[in-house]
Order: sequence, then C-alpha cells, then structure tokens
Amino acid sequence: MKKEPFSFDLTTPGFIPSHYDNHIQRKLSNMKGQYLNHEAYEAMLSEKDLLLYQVYELERPQIEGELLHGISIVHPGKVGNEFFMTKGHYHTVIDTAEIYYTLKGQGYMVMETPEGDCAVEELKAGSILYVPPRWAHRSVNTSSEENLVMFFAYPGNAGHDYGTIETQGFRKLVVEKDGKPEIVDNPRWALPEVG
Amino acid sequence: MKKEPFSFDLTTPGFIPSHYDNHIQRKLSNMKGQYLNHEAYEAMLSEKDLLLYQVYELERPQIEGELLHGISIVHPGKVGNEFFMTKGHYHTVIDTAEIYYTLKGQGYMVMETPEGDCAVEELKAGSILYVPPRWAHRSVNTSSEENLVMFFAYPGNAGHDYGTIETQGFRKLVVEKDGKPEIVDNPRWALPEVG
Repeated sequence: MKKEPFSFDLTTPGFIPSHYDNHIQRKLSNMKGQYLNHEAYEAMLSEKDLLLYQVYELERPQIEGELLHGISIVHPGKVGNEFFMTKGHYHTVIDTAEIYYTLKGQGYMVMETPEGDCAVEELKAGSILYVPPRWAHRSVNTSSEENLVMFFAYPGNAGHDYGTIETQGFRKLVVEKDGKPEIVDNPRWALPEVG
Repeated sequence: MKKEPFSFDLTTPGFIPSHYDNHIQRKLSNMKGQYLNHEAYEAMLSEKDLLLYQVYELERPQIEGELLHGISIVHPGKVGNEFFMTKGHYHTVIDTAEIYYTLKGQGYMVMETPEGDCAVEELKAGSILYVPPRWAHRSVNTSSEENLVMFFAYPGNAGHDYGTIETQGFRKLVVEKDGKPEIVDNPRWALPEVG
C-alpha cells in the first residue's frame, strides 16, 4: 500500500477510476431476502443472476485518520416494483460519517439510525450528501436506463455491519408507482428490541 | 449543527455550494512571507490587496468520526513568477489524511512530511488526489485565467497547523518559466531542527 500521495482520474464517461485496488461486484444472488417481493426475486434469479451494483475501491490501512474511498455504480432495474439498490449497512464503528458526491444518474439514499429515525435524500449529478455518524445508508437507482454513479469517502476505521440491515431491512422502500419513484413504508420492518 | 443527513449542490458553473456555513477569504495581505519574491509581493500589495483564494465550508463537530468538507477556489495569478497558492498546512493531529476531487482548472498539490519527504501531484478536472496522513499540503493554480476548484474532505478531528509552513515554507515552489509551470527547489527552505 502506498505511503506516498497518489492520484487517479474519473474522466471516462462511466467514471471508472483509472486506478483501483478492489473491484466488488454484487449480483442478484447476493441480495437474497433484501427485496420485499420474494416471488419476483426468485423468478428473476431463475432467469439470470444479474449484476446489480459494483464498487471500485482504493486500498488504505483500515485505521483512524485514513479515508477509504472509491466509486459505487448501481445499475438500473427493479425487482418487482422495487428499484435496484445496494445492500446497505451501518458502520461497525457506528460513530463514523460518510460523504458522497453523485457523478451521474438519479436516485435516493435511504437512511436510518438504531434509535428509529429515518431520512431519505435525493441523489442527482452534482449533489453532495453527508451521512452523519450513526446513520445506516443504502443507495437506490430510480432511473430506468442510466447508472447511478457516486464517489464516496469514509473514515478508515469505520468497518461495515451488513447484518443488522439484512435482518430487519430499512424502514423505507423506494418503489415505482404509476411510472414514478415513490418512498413507502416497509411492511416487514420492525424496530430491533433494545436489550 | 444538523444531526440529520443533508445535501447540497455544486451545479453552478463556479461550483459554489448551494448551501454552506463558513466562507473564508484569503487575501494577499494574509500571505506575508509566503512567496519567495518579497519585493514583488510588497509592490503588488501596495497596489491592491487581491483576493487569492476562498473556501466554502460545511460545519461539523470537530471530532473523530465526522468529515469536514467543502470547496476551495484558488484564483489565477502570480506573485513575481510564483503562482497563486493556498497557505498550506499540516494537520494538528498529524496522522490524518485528506482527499480532493478537482472540479475545474489545473495546478499542483505540493506536499511534504516532517521527515523531509516531498511530492508534487498534478491537479486537473476529474482527478482525485489522496493526501495520506503526515503530509502537509498546499494547492497551486497554474492556469493564467481559470479558477482551480476542488472538493475536499478530511477527518473532523484533524485541525490545522499553519505555523510550521509559515516558518519554513515548502521544499518545492511552483513558478512560471518560459510561459510554463515548473517545479523548483525553494532556496529558503530548511529542514527544521529535530529537538
């Protein structure tokens, strides 16, 4: 891993970094149980294990003071009427923020805290989104044809906790209704028991 | 200060954020002793106290886990043959990184460590620069007419140490020579004494 300063470019039309260390690909099969309509999910999966989103990461030491960063690309599409989205996660060190700069496309960031607060912010090219410490976050692509591309950065020691969201989902879903995106309550969401 | 997630846009041609908390303006008079050619500096200052660069900041708690962020704009120009630049600084908590996304313009980031390493990276629209922990950094605009505009983010607890650079300068200068930018040694630079 580099000790010296380094640069890379985001100048291709798809914003794929000119240099990166890790390329993570999440397919439909990696999202079992995450979409509300399980029947639609199984039917889609039996046809093809589609690529839903990709992350290009630059490697840095996973310690305080460093900034992990890269590009996330969510492809367009739906499972049932629910738009393609990332798994979504809390940070393991929960008091750590994340910042996003949307480079292309449109969608929403769905967020919530362990205390039960929730928020949904619009994503569009040229917008910066600040996800404060304690907020789980998931990005959703609401375009029917364009990728949602974002630059992200977060503290090196943050870590990822996917389990909480995998178990309970997010409080809000982003679905298509009458040809437009709509934010609705997740009927399967339940506030975790406070021990 | 907001506890909830928030967004702002960078969609104007000048990339001035649609929302910000602090607007810092650095003029020629704030840069006393920073340019090599003191005579040229004094002559310019006697004519007009020019605005050299501006920073638009979003306020966040200055604690670990948060990310301070905003936009910096370095205007085009020179003092003698040395291009307009920021003061440059170490982080007070020296083991903290910073990340930059160049939105417009061209220039260089001049960097060095307390151990005497130095590095200069090119800045151009669409490039990401990672400044690892321990590296002091200064941005320099080498365009004759265009602003150098960058989005930046760094850990909330980093702080700024301007004093070290004000005293000893950077090891490298960016000057114009035969109509082109050139990186040269700073004849006044001295390695600080290790106590």
